[in-house]
Amino acid sequence: MTGVLAVEAANAALYAAFEAGDVDLMESVWDVVDPDQLVCVHPGWPMLRGRAAVLRSWSAVMAGTDYIQFFLTDVQVDLQGAVAIVTCTENVLTSVDVGANATVVATNVFVLRAAGWRLRVHHGAPVLGRLSE
Amino acid sequence: MTGVLAVEAANAALYAAFEAGDVDLMESVWDVVDPDQLVCVHPGWPMLRGRAAVLRSWSAVMAGTDYIQFFLTDVQVDLQGAVAIVTCTENVLTSVDVGANATVVATNVFVLRAAGWRLRVHHGAPVLGRLSE
Repeated sequence: MTGVLAVEAANAALYAAFEAGDVDLMESVWDVVDPDQLVCVHPGWPMLRGRAAVLRSWSAVMAGTDYIQFFLTDVQVDLQGAVAIVTCTENVLTSVDVGANATVVATNVFVLRAAGWRLRVHHGAPVLGRLSE
Repeated sequence: MTGVLAVEAANAALYAAFEAGDVDLMESVWDVVDPDQLVCVHPGWPMLRGRAAVLRSWSAVMAGTDYIQFFLTDVQVDLQGAVAIVTCTENVLTSVDVGANATVVATNVFVLRAAGWRLRVHHGAPVLGRLSE
């Protein structure tokens, strides 16, 4: 399973890990090749680089989140050989204050490894209210 | 020229086009294959999909910008075969109010075509003051 469905499953695993606060699942979602080049942008945050910093940030974010649920809409998978660019809108329901609203647009870039699709970049950006459509 | 230097040049062309308000150069930066899958997120905006919508947005943004200059820092090129994931911080100097500050983190995904590297995704996200490092 290497096509669009597999990519969608890998993408869903990212959000399932966050919802469950599952550090092990979160670790398995991210790539292990050239780990210094992994990138994560949480909404409103500066860029984090490197597997260690990225996973540490997720542990902190998940530890600070009592409840969160994602409803993904407008999911698009752009397959370019062994790279898959997933773009989607995250409609977030959470107990944590996430700003003016809880709509985030995300770009998630996966690379196909022997074990399956692994995440190299997660980039979440807040949709600011005054500019929402 | 297909390696990191070529990717960096393609990435620089995106910002040069914006700085110059050059619609033709902006059009040449973006890919033409599967044009419906092109994605652009301006900081704070919802996601725009498709070459026509993306280029229209750039024309509007550039028409509304008297002066803008980018100082890119922390530029990383993650080469994955014929796909290049560029991540960087945009330090923006502009006459337009761009919010609480003018630091944007960007993910730009390029694909190698016969004519060179072409942009499929530009995702810019505001770094919000309260979360800056």
